[in-house]
Amino acid sequence: MDQPIRKNFASDNVVSVSPSIMDAMLAANTGTAPSYGADPLSCQLDAAFSTVFGTDVVVLPVGTGTAANALALAALTPPYGVVLCETGAHINTDEGGAGEFFTHGAKLVGIASGDGRITPDGLRNRLARPGVRIEYSPLHALSLTQATEWGTVYDVSTVQALGGLAREAGLRIHMDGARFANAVAHLGCAPADVTWKAGVDVLSFGATKNGAMAAEAIVFFDPALARDSRLRLKRGGHQWSKHRFLAAQLLAYLNDDLWLRNARQANAAATRLAAGLAALPDVSLPLPTQANEVFAIVPPGLADGLKAAGFLFYPWDAPAGEANPMIRLVTSFDMTDADVDGFLTVARGLVAA
Amino acid sequence: MDQPIRKNFASDNVVSVSPSIMDAMLAANTGTAPSYGADPLSCQLDAAFSTVFGTDVVVLPVGTGTAANALALAALTPPYGVVLCETGAHINTDEGGAGEFFTHGAKLVGIASGDGRITPDGLRNRLARPGVRIEYSPLHALSLTQATEWGTVYDVSTVQALGGLAREAGLRIHMDGARFANAVAHLGCAPADVTWKAGVDVLSFGATKNGAMAAEAIVFFDPALARDSRLRLKRGGHQWSKHRFLAAQLLAYLNDDLWLRNARQANAAATRLAAGLAALPDVSLPLPTQANEVFAIVPPGLADGLKAAGFLFYPWDAPAGEANPMIRLVTSFDMTDADVDGFLTVARGLVAA
Amino acid sequence: MDQPIRKNFASDNVVSVSPSIMDAMLAANTGTAPSYGADPLSCQLDAAFSTVFGTDVVVLPVGTGTAANALALAALTPPYGVVLCETGAHINTDEGGAGEFFTHGAKLVGIASGDGRITPDGLRNRLARPGVRIEYSPLHALSLTQATEWGTVYDVSTVQALGGLAREAGLRIHMDGARFANAVAHLGCAPADVTWKAGVDVLSFGATKNGAMAAEAIVFFDPALARDSRLRLKRGGHQWSKHRFLAAQLLAYLNDDLWLRNARQANAAATRLAAGLAALPDVSLPLPTQANEVFAIVPPGLADGLKAAGFLFYPWDAPAGEANPMIRLVTSFDMTDADVDGFLTVARGLVAA
Amino acid sequence: MDQPIRKNFASDNVVSVSPSIMDAMLAANTGTAPSYGADPLSCQLDAAFSTVFGTDVVVLPVGTGTAANALALAALTPPYGVVLCETGAHINTDEGGAGEFFTHGAKLVGIASGDGRITPDGLRNRLARPGVRIEYSPLHALSLTQATEWGTVYDVSTVQALGGLAREAGLRIHMDGARFANAVAHLGCAPADVTWKAGVDVLSFGATKNGAMAAEAIVFFDPALARDSRLRLKRGGHQWSKHRFLAAQLLAYLNDDLWLRNARQANAAATRLAAGLAALPDVSLPLPTQANEVFAIVPPGLADGLKAAGFLFYPWDAPAGEANPMIRLVTSFDMTDADVDGFLTVARGLVAA
Repeated sequence: MDQPIRKNFASDNVVSVSPSIMDAMLAANTGTAPSYGADPLSCQLDAAFSTVFGTDVVVLPVGTGTAANALALAALTPPYGVVLCETGAHINTDEGGAGEFFTHGAKLVGIASGDGRITPDGLRNRLARPGVRIEYSPLHALSLTQATEWGTVYDVSTVQALGGLAREAGLRIHMDGARFANAVAHLGCAPADVTWKAGVDVLSFGATKNGAMAAEAIVFFDPALARDSRLRLKRGGHQWSKHRFLAAQLLAYLNDDLWLRNARQANAAATRLAAGLAALPDVSLPLPTQANEVFAIVPPGLADGLKAAGFLFYPWDAPAGEANPMIRLVTSFDMTDADVDGFLTVARGLVAA
Repeated sequence: MDQPIRKNFASDNVVSVSPSIMDAMLAANTGTAPSYGADPLSCQLDAAFSTVFGTDVVVLPVGTGTAANALALAALTPPYGVVLCETGAHINTDEGGAGEFFTHGAKLVGIASGDGRITPDGLRNRLARPGVRIEYSPLHALSLTQATEWGTVYDVSTVQALGGLAREAGLRIHMDGARFANAVAHLGCAPADVTWKAGVDVLSFGATKNGAMAAEAIVFFDPALARDSRLRLKRGGHQWSKHRFLAAQLLAYLNDDLWLRNARQANAAATRLAAGLAALPDVSLPLPTQANEVFAIVPPGLADGLKAAGFLFYPWDAPAGEANPMIRLVTSFDMTDADVDGFLTVARGLVAA
Repeated sequence: MDQPIRKNFASDNVVSVSPSIMDAMLAANTGTAPSYGADPLSCQLDAAFSTVFGTDVVVLPVGTGTAANALALAALTPPYGVVLCETGAHINTDEGGAGEFFTHGAKLVGIASGDGRITPDGLRNRLARPGVRIEYSPLHALSLTQATEWGTVYDVSTVQALGGLAREAGLRIHMDGARFANAVAHLGCAPADVTWKAGVDVLSFGATKNGAMAAEAIVFFDPALARDSRLRLKRGGHQWSKHRFLAAQLLAYLNDDLWLRNARQANAAATRLAAGLAALPDVSLPLPTQANEVFAIVPPGLADGLKAAGFLFYPWDAPAGEANPMIRLVTSFDMTDADVDGFLTVARGLVAA
Repeated sequence: MDQPIRKNFASDNVVSVSPSIMDAMLAANTGTAPSYGADPLSCQLDAAFSTVFGTDVVVLPVGTGTAANALALAALTPPYGVVLCETGAHINTDEGGAGEFFTHGAKLVGIASGDGRITPDGLRNRLARPGVRIEYSPLHALSLTQATEWGTVYDVSTVQALGGLAREAGLRIHMDGARFANAVAHLGCAPADVTWKAGVDVLSFGATKNGAMAAEAIVFFDPALARDSRLRLKRGGHQWSKHRFLAAQLLAYLNDDLWLRNARQANAAATRLAAGLAALPDVSLPLPTQANEVFAIVPPGLADGLKAAGFLFYPWDAPAGEANPMIRLVTSFDMTDADVDGFLTVARGLVAA
């Protein structure tokens, strides 16, 4: 514990709040304002997001990504419905059953993939053999994670293909965009291209991992879906009374494309990190680095050496059959080339030793 | 709409964040920190609250009072249980069914009172005739609101009496302390006296209405009750990833008794306001002013006049049989004598006219 | 325990199965039949009930009245909705929170009445002051019990008036008809008159208390409401695999108006019993006897004497202020004039003694 | 549709009620009896089952297997818990999410197997990699199906091994015994050997598929687990008022080992059927026939020929890579050698043609 932290690659939720978002919260902290979303900042949210997405959207802001995802799912499926998602999707594995809680027990059925991205064939097969008796447990929604938990990004045509298959089968589509900014920054597309134009009904638009303090936007491309969600949100205890501070974060996040600028910075750090690691002997990257996560299979001992040198990161389950350990490195909007190079220099030294 | 706001008495959630709490959040915004509650600030919470309450407590912080209350209730009753509360308790009337949601459908059964405070006789009668067939719907918990929605405060001996009756009947006790600071400031007692020493098992310790941005502490006096609540909290989407910002608010709120200082200021403003209003002809106060809310029955036209002068507040349902309208005025930690006197001067002028 | 039972007035669920219903179950017990409702008997249910009600209905049969009520409520309200009902309604007090369970936590809000029948004024007042903040907990349904728990019956015009008020307020209407047959037998009206023609959307049509073994029909006057209920029913574990035995009971119950014949018999016994009791000195009946329940306030000692003589019945909470005890006597389709007269003779003797 | 049914192999829930069970129901239909389980027959249930299992058990009877399973799971896991089960287990695929409903959203996580039987290795692997983040979604229970959906039976030592692993990991154990009788008949063991002696906490003891009308017993080997289940059962609408008719079925089912005699008959029919089919050219049985189900891969056209001849059964998903279709044949307690031979004769003729 005496070793000072050199750089923290453990997650993108360990970083601070973006200065301009903090400034916006400070600026909002004057005088009184109507509570529960009737304040002037909150009233700008729909318009601000509608501009970003090029269509009229309704936005409900909440403080956590888990709440955003769970409320989105509850808007798309009844308790007796089924949601298809990638087997290792955050909603399926990491949210303590929040999706089941807010939907009152809907079933999440996984579709396996090698890299976090459901393929059209994978979806087609699952639609044909859902693994549940669908006359009692009808399929209601498909949830896609963009970018995925594995740092990979669906390209536009794949989202379109999946969206087409899902709609044909009568499913509504949710996108878990905890790292949506990283995906759009990678793709260089319009936000509309991978969302409503490809069939997405509701997007969990993440901000916390990419610069906010505690703010995520549930973006409803079908405004009718939002109506009851307000009541579910309240009932879930997610309506802030001093609502202006949620709105302030999100407006600052959108302002001047801060969301994309932050994501580009994080993605660039990951790309640099990936390239540097791949060049090391005995290090291999099992997945493409498209967002802000790098997974590397490393020689025994390297991980310990890096930790001893003051770097933070997590070990991760290596692919089946892989003898060496795997580590996960997550980059953030506050990482510079120098930060990355500092890590690579140490790694290079350890490998050489 | 052109009229500038002179002073906003609409609620205690319309005010800004206490400067020292905002400063603490800024101070927390440096470097990286472990997420989900493993950061150094979060690790101080239990100790800080244990000091305040003079006993070992376990604390779970959340962003809203509704979440705090609902999670507290879920710790005390199974889905098939019954919670007794005052008929007009916030949990029963104003939280969109959050209590029902987090408990998975437990039943809230009201006990009527004139002023928000359940009496020992009222509780005794309800225990004898709960209004549900208790072999199928057993009573599990009693929830008390301190201070109440009507600005009244249970004195220590009443909480003790209610606590004794409840425990005798096998009930656990929740206290909704959204305005707990105002109650303690009024009573001048030790926080322990109206909580665990009187039988309270779980307290929703409010901060947002009294200076925080979005922070409430669920205080478990029985640590065993907290264990599963962590999982319910996660599942409810209430675990902040950048958890240090919840902790920073609460630590600053406790520091140097800010919570009590803020509450005393708000209570003093209410007392001054109540005295000034009571002195006006044709104005009467149906309830004692013990915390930071004043209810006043006013002559026709006075409310409109005050609004036209730029004051904000809500009309409220007058007691049955009362011909004149009633208004509710809520004071906050940021109100000065001058603010109150400004209001009273206008009111006096209007009554005289 | 040595005393043989002379007659059991404890409830209408202590009696046996009507012979013709048992015969129908026996007749159904030949050969194989498709399961889960695809058998020939089950396929006749919609038509049989449509004939009774003079309109096209969809029917879902279940084994208990609690299941029927809870599934009906779940068809009418979302989890965040509110159901209005009489304070002492069976769904509110006696079903272990089944309504809350199947609706996933909707709130039941009581309307007090003297005799189990909500009055139009009572409903109007509750609609004006629902006791919950309706922007977070919108009113969704009204539930009426016909006949009521107090053996009283809504007349046609009152159901129409309540139905009109409810529909005006945007509520759907459920009727708990655990003793629907007794109500219709009393009114002598067409079943349609007190149901869909008066605005009822879903009826729990009871059979078990009036001759069946374990069978109730959820009758949907709006077929659209039935669709998802099939899934909720399955999910609730209420779909019998050998479904023909549910259908056989209900078809036999409707056949040749058995349901009305049985109810008339029970009602006649109650009327005779009420008249006989009212004629006794110091006995009074606080409520009109309109269905198959008699409530009597009796001199001290009479209840014990009757029990000692071998009669079974329950004591019941007497009206406030009443010094003498109250008893409840429930009659059934299997009671004869001689049974009633036997009871009255003993009672007369005891009073005279 | 004109073709008369020769024999119905579609399921074991298409058959009638065993004559002695129907007789018991008739015998129970005399006079009055206390309702809701206080009748003399219901009071014998615990003792009768305790005798069968050689230990003191508490029994809750319900009308359907889905209710039995879902209530059992709800006794073993909180809403935020995880239940492990075979991927194709009935609770996971065929019950409309009843398990999720009664547990309020617990997660069912599948363990794949070739033949419906989880292997100790399969369980060990899943315990090591549960596929959920267990600090948020702790594992609480293991559910085993005995006999499985594939007509296979866990032998005693395997249940012991699985039970040992589960208990070591802190899991409670449920056994779905919709076809428990068939399993015990196959094993020839004492019922205790594959249940509580091997670690099972709660058993869904099926009767409906093997001779009852609508009756299943939830058998609690740990009586403490039963206490709250009574309340969940009531709340689920599963408490019959005329409870004697549930008890009558179960007592008759146990009487003189009817449950085992019926199961032996069904198993013998399946064994004879399997042997006959296996002897046919181009027919293969992918699974051992241990209970009352036979799965056969058949030449194209055979299934249609059999249907045309008046036999009923279902096609079933063939194993991956299998070119020919598969059919499922289920036998019942009412099938004779002649019935089976009649089927085989037709099949032989069709294959020869």
